[in-house]
Amino acid sequence: MTEKIPVAVLGATGTVGQRFISLLADHPWFEIASITGSERSEGREYGEAVRWLLPGEIPPTVREMRVGRGDESPQGARLLFSALPARVAEEAEPRMAAEGYIVCSNASAHRMGGDVPLLIPEINADHLALIDRQRELRGWSGLIVTSPNCSTTGIVFPLKALEDAFGVSQVHAVTMQAISGAGYPGVSSMEILDNVIPFIRGEEVKIEQETRKLLGRLGEDAIEPADIEVSAQANRVPVLDGHMAALSIGLRNAPDLNEVEAALAAFRGVEELPSAPAHPLIVRPEQNRPQPRLDREAQDGMAVSVGRVQPCSVLDYRMITLVHNTLRGAAGGALLNAELLVEQGYLGESAKEAAFA
Amino acid sequence: MTEKIPVAVLGATGTVGQRFISLLADHPWFEIASITGSERSEGREYGEAVRWLLPGEIPPTVREMRVGRGDESPQGARLLFSALPARVAEEAEPRMAAEGYIVCSNASAHRMGGDVPLLIPEINADHLALIDRQRELRGWSGLIVTSPNCSTTGIVFPLKALEDAFGVSQVHAVTMQAISGAGYPGVSSMEILDNVIPFIRGEEVKIEQETRKLLGRLGEDAIEPADIEVSAQANRVPVLDGHMAALSIGLRNAPDLNEVEAALAAFRGVEELPSAPAHPLIVRPEQNRPQPRLDREAQDGMAVSVGRVQPCSVLDYRMITLVHNTLRGAAGGALLNAELLVEQGYLGESAKEAAFA
Amino acid sequence: MTEKIPVAVLGATGTVGQRFISLLADHPWFEIASITGSERSEGREYGEAVRWLLPGEIPPTVREMRVGRGDESPQGARLLFSALPARVAEEAEPRMAAEGYIVCSNASAHRMGGDVPLLIPEINADHLALIDRQRELRGWSGLIVTSPNCSTTGIVFPLKALEDAFGVSQVHAVTMQAISGAGYPGVSSMEILDNVIPFIRGEEVKIEQETRKLLGRLGEDAIEPADIEVSAQANRVPVLDGHMAALSIGLRNAPDLNEVEAALAAFRGVEELPSAPAHPLIVRPEQNRPQPRLDREAQDGMAVSVGRVQPCSVLDYRMITLVHNTLRGAAGGALLNAELLVEQGYLGESAKEAAFA
Amino acid sequence: MTEKIPVAVLGATGTVGQRFISLLADHPWFEIASITGSERSEGREYGEAVRWLLPGEIPPTVREMRVGRGDESPQGARLLFSALPARVAEEAEPRMAAEGYIVCSNASAHRMGGDVPLLIPEINADHLALIDRQRELRGWSGLIVTSPNCSTTGIVFPLKALEDAFGVSQVHAVTMQAISGAGYPGVSSMEILDNVIPFIRGEEVKIEQETRKLLGRLGEDAIEPADIEVSAQANRVPVLDGHMAALSIGLRNAPDLNEVEAALAAFRGVEELPSAPAHPLIVRPEQNRPQPRLDREAQDGMAVSVGRVQPCSVLDYRMITLVHNTLRGAAGGALLNAELLVEQGYLGESAKEAAFA
Repeated sequence: MTEKIPVAVLGATGTVGQRFISLLADHPWFEIASITGSERSEGREYGEAVRWLLPGEIPPTVREMRVGRGDESPQGARLLFSALPARVAEEAEPRMAAEGYIVCSNASAHRMGGDVPLLIPEINADHLALIDRQRELRGWSGLIVTSPNCSTTGIVFPLKALEDAFGVSQVHAVTMQAISGAGYPGVSSMEILDNVIPFIRGEEVKIEQETRKLLGRLGEDAIEPADIEVSAQANRVPVLDGHMAALSIGLRNAPDLNEVEAALAAFRGVEELPSAPAHPLIVRPEQNRPQPRLDREAQDGMAVSVGRVQPCSVLDYRMITLVHNTLRGAAGGALLNAELLVEQGYLGESAKEAAFA
Repeated sequence: MTEKIPVAVLGATGTVGQRFISLLADHPWFEIASITGSERSEGREYGEAVRWLLPGEIPPTVREMRVGRGDESPQGARLLFSALPARVAEEAEPRMAAEGYIVCSNASAHRMGGDVPLLIPEINADHLALIDRQRELRGWSGLIVTSPNCSTTGIVFPLKALEDAFGVSQVHAVTMQAISGAGYPGVSSMEILDNVIPFIRGEEVKIEQETRKLLGRLGEDAIEPADIEVSAQANRVPVLDGHMAALSIGLRNAPDLNEVEAALAAFRGVEELPSAPAHPLIVRPEQNRPQPRLDREAQDGMAVSVGRVQPCSVLDYRMITLVHNTLRGAAGGALLNAELLVEQGYLGESAKEAAFA
Repeated sequence: MTEKIPVAVLGATGTVGQRFISLLADHPWFEIASITGSERSEGREYGEAVRWLLPGEIPPTVREMRVGRGDESPQGARLLFSALPARVAEEAEPRMAAEGYIVCSNASAHRMGGDVPLLIPEINADHLALIDRQRELRGWSGLIVTSPNCSTTGIVFPLKALEDAFGVSQVHAVTMQAISGAGYPGVSSMEILDNVIPFIRGEEVKIEQETRKLLGRLGEDAIEPADIEVSAQANRVPVLDGHMAALSIGLRNAPDLNEVEAALAAFRGVEELPSAPAHPLIVRPEQNRPQPRLDREAQDGMAVSVGRVQPCSVLDYRMITLVHNTLRGAAGGALLNAELLVEQGYLGESAKEAAFA
Repeated sequence: MTEKIPVAVLGATGTVGQRFISLLADHPWFEIASITGSERSEGREYGEAVRWLLPGEIPPTVREMRVGRGDESPQGARLLFSALPARVAEEAEPRMAAEGYIVCSNASAHRMGGDVPLLIPEINADHLALIDRQRELRGWSGLIVTSPNCSTTGIVFPLKALEDAFGVSQVHAVTMQAISGAGYPGVSSMEILDNVIPFIRGEEVKIEQETRKLLGRLGEDAIEPADIEVSAQANRVPVLDGHMAALSIGLRNAPDLNEVEAALAAFRGVEELPSAPAHPLIVRPEQNRPQPRLDREAQDGMAVSVGRVQPCSVLDYRMITLVHNTLRGAAGGALLNAELLVEQGYLGESAKEAAFA
């Protein structure tokens, strides 16, 4: 493609924002035109404003970029990646959508909105059809698409495979979540070293609601949530990146273990999108995998890994699932959503043609 | 009491053995007369043979004691605390019981034996009645009593309260277990730093079987396991001490949340035993407790803590439970069993009288 | 003693404040009459205002105490323990001293004041004589005594022993400091998990200056700093409690290794004070000690441990030193200072008599 | 180049061996023809024999390779990378060199041998001239070249820059070393979680001796060690990868801080070797860098990072240095040595021509 599509990153100084910056640095379709941050960062150079926590250097093209105000409509880009805090996103994202911006949001504020797609391309690309309803209802020339909570993302991949093959009736999920999920400064080291915290504010409800929406059916006016009982217990563990969940799953049919494994292994990815992993759901055969440190980077952090698939004497099957929470579970997921929007023509024919040139 | 009861610690150099040494150092009834260790330790002074991993010093009375051979019947003590490896305990413990020793074992080898009490005084003291059957069947003048797996111990306390009040039909348990549960050297730091390992060999089956035995009913010839479906997923986390479990529990009756909390709070301890905690089951009201680092030492590490008691949309209620795995879950549990044996007269009337003098 | 001396804890909700609360709970001479905290805590019950981070429960007598404003002169107590932030202590402590309060401060604000004793009873009890000068100069009816920076405390114990025996000319100290030294929330887990941070703001200068003052000679008007070159490099490591330092030391005389070890072993404590450890400087003979997790609690956290004493090919001798940073290095140190003040009569004869009754 | 140079990896299953496998997977000059491991691994497929601890998958070309016996001369390759344990390397490496193999060793056994180059291409490529002496003396058709201890590697880079510019007279180094330096299983998690261990067997002497040899002058028959007093205190910290050292350095001249920084910044790399980093010595300007987690991967883990360059009141300057211990400090260093040997013609002209084709 001759010219890249300019994009803005909102909330670029936080941990998810940093992942956006890092992933967009060499993106084949997109280039960063504008960034915003908190009040504290406004007006400063990115390299000075950010407390960079990723290994490696800040991409040089962004280092000297001036940070704009977090909730202000950015200049020079129509496609926005939002890593805004939920309370800021609440008001800012709809305003920007009304102004014509294409908002790919990682914030939780609008995920459960009836006319807002909660999107994972490999799971529910058809939910994008909600956009027509969204624009009609709100009178927007832009749009909002959201990506789910980081833990939900890791849980919904194996569930999707099982739902399609056998029907899922019940899910009990116990998460063991990385500290990066709380951002920076987030979890104090005084709280988590040599410890586990069995509580993450709001997380359990998000997992329960978002899972049902993601696996739901596109109705006339909104998504009809999947008829699945979901119960989640969320725990924080001293791990940097990678959210694990121990799942126990009730199925509508009664497959044997081989059929369950085959259904998981048969999960297919989407094609032609630059950030889409070839194998979005990796089934590990070892008895002690997946593990956060060893598996979180699989497929550049865009694959979900499952393992220890076994019969469960309470529900039907149990397994362990793992997702890189700030890549596939946050910035990478939102980026993939944006790529799908380009491919589906939501940024216009010229953007699509340019991308696929 | 004028004279203490001499005891031996088998396998005294390991992590559980060290806890036995530490707990027995100032015990009001018992005093260490003899210790054994692995081949590597045999014949050396304890202070040289052991790699002491507990804060504080080795008790001075034990430091210069000579370490005997692990599987050899010790001199000078009839009451034995066994922290032997399962494969050694398999043969050695019955042999010693036949020779007249009272074996309080923390090893897994004989826990599921039909005539062997798997004992927690607050849970199933009545199972001690199996001892008559054991002696009759085996022709032993001594006896074996076992204490359960460390994770099982933490899980069975709230279950017992709920079983008695409402009947328990199903339990799904996801554990987050401390590294000390694997002993020393145990888990390599290369495996667990910045990581979670979703596998502990043999652990899940132990939790499933032992829970049913502990809550079972004393039958004619053996324990009839409780009719509870138990499913366990065991994980290792970077925590030094304290095994947590996220529980989801199905009940036979339909109590409301207040009734569940009341049943947990009503759990009562045993009286008159020196190591028995006043409150063996502590219900924490905070939304983010129990936590291993903050709660593992509760009641000198002999109390189990539960918290986050909530309705569960898959089974009936969910909660978090925590036990200190090397205290209540191992050495402390076996010590309490020995105290019960003394009180019930299994060491003879003179020992009982001495203890309660 | 019939009645305890009432005391106040200023800044009682922070990590050092919590240690004060915990240490004072069962103190033989003192009882907590009043506590203050930050604006956020003011007016609330302590149990609600504090984020309690120590194992075990909040002492019941303090749990329901009302938290006063941090910089306000407390009621009902003349003896104050200050864990105030330095910027608050700057103004508040002299004001309170002027009002007649006896301030035992752990804050850094006034440590280097010419007329302010920087005090460790075992090191420089004679520096208390500065108090006369302080009162004369400032016209105070009260007084301020400070305890040193937590790292300095661990370093100065072996130095004192060597200074007295051989004279110290140079010290190079590389610290490895626990996260609790930064308070709560303090160090973000995102920064320190799987990491070391080679920087602690202001710490190196504190170590360099305070060491020289602590070992200095009481002059007419002020302390003459010891003539020792001190260079410190401060590092933060993922350890909860316990500041270690690797020391390389130049001596004025040329003792052999035995003489050095003997001088360290000969260090004597102060007598008759309740918080004074019997052996304030423990010399460990093992080649791999002291270690934070194993040795920080020595003598209830009030002893400094040294080990690995060896010749150094650059300066003369090198060794490792360890101190519990929030006990001996903070709250415990200030408490011991207060006990010395009582014994020396600074709280009046009646307090002294009561204490030693 | 049309055909790659076949190589063997000795001791391929350990942590350094795994790094060799990973680095050689896509090497432009070399390809793995043969691997050996411990007795336990002999005869098994690599994928089964190894406990793979690196993120990502085992390279597919190696996964099914059969593991040979550790100390056996391998088939099909003349160039050997040795990650053998020192006690095995002691005998095996000279035997293989006598048989004509080119041994690039990471083992410590022969590092201090008078006729064995201890080599870092950017530091002392001229020491390769020892090879003639080695072959003459031993009658070998092959040769041994060694790479230094992992900590030494991080220390010697800034020292080389300062030695060349100002002359170095004294170095005091306090290391904070990663657990991967001890291999697998290596350091037990029971020892290092929430802890620092101030002892690594043999490490301090290695740092002191190897530093002097690396900076030494090539004499007639051997290296004349540099006339530098080196004192090292080695500590283990809970970090996965990356050895840090706090250095205090005495210089022969008296440069100012700018001159010191300029000398460090002027350090130049070697050219034309595939594993050589463009900037082998990175000077960080931030006050809190380098940090293991953020800087260890710099330049693919082949650069050493220094920071916090400051005057020292005891010696002349102090600074922090960091090296990735299993990349530049082990497998990567040995690989770079092999590349230098190819370039210098030690594998024959055809290998050199092929490499540079």
